[in-house]
Amino acid sequence: MPEVLDTLIQKNDTKIVMVVLDGLGGLPINGTTEMEAANTPNLDSLARRSATGLHIPVAPGITPGSGPGHLGIFGYNPMDWQIGRGVLEALGLGMELKNTDVAMRCNYATMKDGLIVDRRAGRIPTEQSKKLTELLQKEIPQIDDVKLIFAPGMEHRFAVVFRFPDELPDGADLVNDTDPQKEGKPPLEPVGKNESARKVAEVAKKLIARAQEILKDQERANYIMLRGIARVPAIPSFHDKFGLKALAIAVYPMYRGLARLIGMDTPVVQGDIAEEIDFLKKHYDRYDFFFMHIKKTDSYGEDGNFEAKAKKLEEFDRYLPEILSLKPDVLVITGDHSTPSLLKSHSWHPVPVLINSPYVLGGLSSAFTERECAKGELGIFSAYHILPLSLANAGRLKKFGA
Amino acid sequence: MPEVLDTLIQKNDTKIVMVVLDGLGGLPINGTTEMEAANTPNLDSLARRSATGLHIPVAPGITPGSGPGHLGIFGYNPMDWQIGRGVLEALGLGMELKNTDVAMRCNYATMKDGLIVDRRAGRIPTEQSKKLTELLQKEIPQIDDVKLIFAPGMEHRFAVVFRFPDELPDGADLVNDTDPQKEGKPPLEPVGKNESARKVAEVAKKLIARAQEILKDQERANYIMLRGIARVPAIPSFHDKFGLKALAIAVYPMYRGLARLIGMDTPVVQGDIAEEIDFLKKHYDRYDFFFMHIKKTDSYGEDGNFEAKAKKLEEFDRYLPEILSLKPDVLVITGDHSTPSLLKSHSWHPVPVLINSPYVLGGLSSAFTERECAKGELGIFSAYHILPLSLANAGRLKKFGA
Repeated sequence: MPEVLDTLIQKNDTKIVMVVLDGLGGLPINGTTEMEAANTPNLDSLARRSATGLHIPVAPGITPGSGPGHLGIFGYNPMDWQIGRGVLEALGLGMELKNTDVAMRCNYATMKDGLIVDRRAGRIPTEQSKKLTELLQKEIPQIDDVKLIFAPGMEHRFAVVFRFPDELPDGADLVNDTDPQKEGKPPLEPVGKNESARKVAEVAKKLIARAQEILKDQERANYIMLRGIARVPAIPSFHDKFGLKALAIAVYPMYRGLARLIGMDTPVVQGDIAEEIDFLKKHYDRYDFFFMHIKKTDSYGEDGNFEAKAKKLEEFDRYLPEILSLKPDVLVITGDHSTPSLLKSHSWHPVPVLINSPYVLGGLSSAFTERECAKGELGIFSAYHILPLSLANAGRLKKFGA
Repeated sequence: MPEVLDTLIQKNDTKIVMVVLDGLGGLPINGTTEMEAANTPNLDSLARRSATGLHIPVAPGITPGSGPGHLGIFGYNPMDWQIGRGVLEALGLGMELKNTDVAMRCNYATMKDGLIVDRRAGRIPTEQSKKLTELLQKEIPQIDDVKLIFAPGMEHRFAVVFRFPDELPDGADLVNDTDPQKEGKPPLEPVGKNESARKVAEVAKKLIARAQEILKDQERANYIMLRGIARVPAIPSFHDKFGLKALAIAVYPMYRGLARLIGMDTPVVQGDIAEEIDFLKKHYDRYDFFFMHIKKTDSYGEDGNFEAKAKKLEEFDRYLPEILSLKPDVLVITGDHSTPSLLKSHSWHPVPVLINSPYVLGGLSSAFTERECAKGELGIFSAYHILPLSLANAGRLKKFGA
């Protein structure tokens, strides 16, 4: 994204709604993709009067995780801002992260004679794991001047955040995983690659030792391993960057967490599409930008459930008129990446996108599908251009140069 | 533009004609754009046998001014070479600028008791303003070792160029405007942000004081304010960069000025399309590259005059066979940016472009319109690629690598 953008932002009272159908793009099975198979008259009609195209989330051939996928459509080059695994895990468990935090995901494990004999502590039940994590939180609220915040996860998983008194420098998270990756091996010592990382490693070492003491009578979960140690990236806020007061409408904690990383408001919303649209309507007067996240298109893609993914698109299509009735100045509908049922996973394929405003050509795509969007006026372009294009369509960018 | 290009330039006796229909691209009103509404059989036929596409002048969503718009199609990345407001104003008034110059636009203003009481000196008549500016030129030809060159403008406006004995370093134009922006306030002192800028500010201060003395008996125009102080960018010449001896054919001074910034020859030409084509024919033997600028498409777009813009395209279409009869090796037809009548202003929308030579696929666009060009073999691409593509089609680029 051009550096000049910062100097061109102007505010007005327009509203931009961005709907993210997670994992939107697909691939043909028996000749048609999920989007082509779905009966979506409202989306198709909207596509015919919108600017359409395909966005490349990160770079050609690169399959993004949810972090880079969302950063791109939020207007950040995902190669400039990498979100560590520990941070994403913590966000997914609903933790609030500050810029003084280092986050990591953790496993309960079984240790015997100094060796890891089960890396997942026999996949202990979530209920038991939760109790142990609560115990750890109670017993280890702080190490030195660092606060510890624990969050229970599924089965043997949990997350920990080290909250330091001050912001840490870049590279403070250069601490290795302690998981030896193979059973029958001793765990690794956490080692920091620089002075501030050594401080993080020191706290990690003390945490492991204290946990070992507390868990020593546990049959299976008598040890903890730390993985994906990562600092929250010092990413500029969405408001500072684009001048937009933004609301995230997402049922799943990870997506609210990603939005919170860039300073969007992220109140809890429960339910599915209907409840999200009610939420949008209720808060419509109070924000400039709305990120509305619909998860299930991705989940069904990951399951390889072609029909269910198509049905979910049809369900969204039925709700689309309710969004249109709000008359947003700019409406963007896209995904964070493709999740073809054929692959049962995220993929590298460019993602359909439509931008609707009074200032588009339109008429180039006859439906909202991968192949029809390939014909559109936006072409095939990097995801991080969607935000500047949305701002332009909302009259929120001044002219560059005289 | 790729750095490797410099090493690949080879000369031959081909000719490249680039027609710039200023503000070419538009948006639909009642379903059709200006280009779609215009009856342009010659352009449409040419588009069918040309490489077509849409160019992005600066970056997606960015609306360019005339400066960045032209730099892009001249093969320069407009984000690397920003042209200050004062420079553009001076070029628009027909001033010749050298790389030792600092240019600024100026206002006559009314000062009373040290406060600016009218920022435009009651919009004094152009005739009176012209006389005052001639007086200033006569009385202040030089300050220290700096020559001053004045150019009268409309009403209260004029421009001044400081011609230093030697080229100034980057940042020498980091001097603030002296306009307080609001009436009832004192003017600002010009202050330089670094050593060489302080030298410029010093001359500015002396100029303001000398002018105040000269204008002290004027009722309204008794003070001058300086704005948009800018150095001529140290931009490499078009000839050095592309090996082309270039002629600009433009009626409006600003566009000749922009061309002169990169070293094109810019003799004065008067009239409209017919006269420009005569000029092209007359000079056809003596240059490799011809930049022919047609202004009115933009002017009518800015006026919101859809029909007049379409008519201007039809007028150009009637002259197109005369250009074709010269049999240029490469003919490029495009705009510097879009100016949709719907928006009555420059816009961010990609601009139709066709490149005609014997070495194109063709057959992808049925007409020369925004939507048909979106289907073309050039795709949607950055404006600064047009020049390398033109060179390639002219056989003026060697192979890269073995």
